[in-house]
Amino acid sequence: MLDPQDWQAFRALAHAALDDAMAYLEGVRERPAWRPVPDEVQARLAEPLPQDPTPLQAVYDEFAQSIMPYHSGNIHPRFFGWVQGSGTPTGALAELLAATMNPNVGGRNHGAVYVERAVIGWFRELFGFPEAASGVLTVGTSAANLIAVLVARTKILGPHVRETGVNIEGGRLIAYTSSATHSCVRRAFEVSGLGSASLRVLGTDSLHRIDPTTVARMIAEDREIGNRPFMVIGNAGTVDVGAIDPLDELAEICAREELWFHVDGAFGATAMMAPSLAPKLRGIERADSIAFDFHKWLQAPYDAGCLLVRDGELHRETFASTPNYLTRMPRGLASAQPWFTDFTLDLSRSFRALKVWFTIKEHGAKRLGEAMEANVRQARLFGDLIDANEAFELLAPVQLNVVCFRYRRDGMNEAELDAGNDEIVIRLQESGEAVVSSTVVSGRRAIRICIVNQRTTDDDVRFTLEAIERIGNELIA
Amino acid sequence: MLDPQDWQAFRALAHAALDDAMAYLEGVRERPAWRPVPDEVQARLAEPLPQDPTPLQAVYDEFAQSIMPYHSGNIHPRFFGWVQGSGTPTGALAELLAATMNPNVGGRNHGAVYVERAVIGWFRELFGFPEAASGVLTVGTSAANLIAVLVARTKILGPHVRETGVNIEGGRLIAYTSSATHSCVRRAFEVSGLGSASLRVLGTDSLHRIDPTTVARMIAEDREIGNRPFMVIGNAGTVDVGAIDPLDELAEICAREELWFHVDGAFGATAMMAPSLAPKLRGIERADSIAFDFHKWLQAPYDAGCLLVRDGELHRETFASTPNYLTRMPRGLASAQPWFTDFTLDLSRSFRALKVWFTIKEHGAKRLGEAMEANVRQARLFGDLIDANEAFELLAPVQLNVVCFRYRRDGMNEAELDAGNDEIVIRLQESGEAVVSSTVVSGRRAIRICIVNQRTTDDDVRFTLEAIERIGNELIA
Repeated sequence: MLDPQDWQAFRALAHAALDDAMAYLEGVRERPAWRPVPDEVQARLAEPLPQDPTPLQAVYDEFAQSIMPYHSGNIHPRFFGWVQGSGTPTGALAELLAATMNPNVGGRNHGAVYVERAVIGWFRELFGFPEAASGVLTVGTSAANLIAVLVARTKILGPHVRETGVNIEGGRLIAYTSSATHSCVRRAFEVSGLGSASLRVLGTDSLHRIDPTTVARMIAEDREIGNRPFMVIGNAGTVDVGAIDPLDELAEICAREELWFHVDGAFGATAMMAPSLAPKLRGIERADSIAFDFHKWLQAPYDAGCLLVRDGELHRETFASTPNYLTRMPRGLASAQPWFTDFTLDLSRSFRALKVWFTIKEHGAKRLGEAMEANVRQARLFGDLIDANEAFELLAPVQLNVVCFRYRRDGMNEAELDAGNDEIVIRLQESGEAVVSSTVVSGRRAIRICIVNQRTTDDDVRFTLEAIERIGNELIA
Repeated sequence: MLDPQDWQAFRALAHAALDDAMAYLEGVRERPAWRPVPDEVQARLAEPLPQDPTPLQAVYDEFAQSIMPYHSGNIHPRFFGWVQGSGTPTGALAELLAATMNPNVGGRNHGAVYVERAVIGWFRELFGFPEAASGVLTVGTSAANLIAVLVARTKILGPHVRETGVNIEGGRLIAYTSSATHSCVRRAFEVSGLGSASLRVLGTDSLHRIDPTTVARMIAEDREIGNRPFMVIGNAGTVDVGAIDPLDELAEICAREELWFHVDGAFGATAMMAPSLAPKLRGIERADSIAFDFHKWLQAPYDAGCLLVRDGELHRETFASTPNYLTRMPRGLASAQPWFTDFTLDLSRSFRALKVWFTIKEHGAKRLGEAMEANVRQARLFGDLIDANEAFELLAPVQLNVVCFRYRRDGMNEAELDAGNDEIVIRLQESGEAVVSSTVVSGRRAIRICIVNQRTTDDDVRFTLEAIERIGNELIA
């Protein structure tokens, strides 16, 4: 009833839209890295609920005019803001195909289920996890970290916590992580009812890594005062500077103290595909759970993340339920246990595995690893250029693919430096030449460059740094 | 670096894939409603992590051969299992376009943000919510219900619950809902640390609706024994039989008792678009929060749901945080507050609003409402045919778009009826003629038909019921 009345016309429109999309990606370098959404476009989009039909061609034209020009920048070769993958044309095509099949991948017996299982198997293999490990695709690492906290909660409190709820009588549960850990981990503690007071946030060393000695000492102190240590969360690539915690040492502590060892590897974990980077992640294979994204360094389109759990049965016990209307059957569509709904928050789930499957099949782990290595080299190039230029000051060592620095001139005080560097970030975005973002490193406002972009070239690095210097100089003048 | 070496060749492949996808949807009626994934296909997909690249054409061919034929049925006109929308070709095209732009819709200032805001505004309007109400798109109603529970938790315990965690000292928080409520609501209580013991599950009346008198009585009893009532969860369309709770009466109780009134309207809430169905939902406009899906009766491809919250500020206080690396700026890409990350679980989020925007723009609320009304008429037709046929027994009144019944013959005992009806469901799926699912109604195994399918015709209804009778007769013989 909602299918095209005229399939021929629909096909013509779809082919034209596909051409537009491909031209958009092929020519992305020629267009601004970002542009603001004009007020009149914002106003046009804020229309009342459409009551009547609009010819699809007119809808598409509105999209092409009012929406498509205003991407968020990350598809552009000179986008270095936050931690955002750039995607690939293949990934976009895979999304079309996934939505054409349009399965609900909550479970059951159909093709998408086996694709998601295959993808999970690939990462079980990459991280050296056992066959019995479970996995599930999520929107991203935020949800994956939350699920990890919930599974660790089941481990320490038992599956009956699902019924009884969390009760801090009997000692507060305590987890340990560094101040460099992403805010979504704190959110996981908030959501789970444990409360962020259960997350002990420890200072970092000069390389922005957690100090295992401090972790061990705090565990002892917590036990002493009647708290219940249950979890350590290590970082494989911190958001601010790209630091990797000493995972092997954390794994050792967790083994000794019988704590759950979770690794937040949102972007860094997939560097296991790069031979020159994998050694930095030593110890990740000992984790109880690993959370990571496909839409960052693996270039799948938004959104797709994953959680792997060594103890698959514990993972299942944290979520599994079988209401009457989800009865499993020995044959037919309702077969093929276990269902993904028994491992995650969501009962309805899209076929997000397909874009990951296409990406990894097309390029293979080696080439994807090479693309990451290229980004790491580009970050080093940024760092070298910054080091060699007295207009800039590096604010943290370049350890992976992130560079934090600031523009400076003699005579600028700290307040002027903070305000000036924020203004540079904004003006660079407004210029459309490149996108970088802001953060704070050791109390100082930093310009932050994070390269998880398969389209970036060394020339883009040089061009961007020159633009930043030019804007800084204009600001001073 | 991962973009096509040869764009011309990529375009040719993409156009061919688009043709395949359109032919797939145009011809969906001619193919089986479902078919099992053969063992050899399962084995082929379970390959090790690909290390080396594969030409995209070969990857696509493998998709076309090993994945595409095995959809999960819901795109077929004779799919009536669970509660699954069938999607539209426009929705699939929108997914291609969304992944081409590939924004992270966590926040910031770009086109996708204004599209999501527009979609939220449309549903605020549909449900008569005020301008100050907040909204956010989610994977689905599971996440939306979870977020609603978390906002209600903030309301009763205060925002400091994020830090302190849940503590049942001082009286257990209690929410009220019916035994017909979806399992994801229980999961929300498990995840949030309140525990399912905080969810009081009440029996239903003959129409499978909650009894407001019982709710009021239980609230009084709970207060009496020192528990803390805080929330009522009403259903706008129960999963098993499509019942709608007396929302207006529940709203009245919540107003009087100062409890949070949440409506789980996973599929039913969007029936507000249908003039003949909207009156059944009276009282939904008084809810504190409403959760619903776009991938069910609104036919957007998987996945997309939504939560609306009347008190937008409370919603924000439940999640908002601004770490250094997410600093908001007055201009540039990091402007345009508030960000969606302050209202939901996930920090990275895809452009799922676009498929909703395209769907509602193309068809308008009226036609979408008509499609729902057609499904309700078809359910009634199913019910009438079942009533008129002594081989069948209706197990619940047909109230909306769900029909629960069983095949029966004189002399079959209850155990035989249960086993026989499950077997009919499986055999029908295996025949590829249609897909229905199973549930339990009043202790009896039921064949369950739920029509949220824009492709279904009245002839599909008749054909499916004849197939069920034929399979039942074969089973007896």
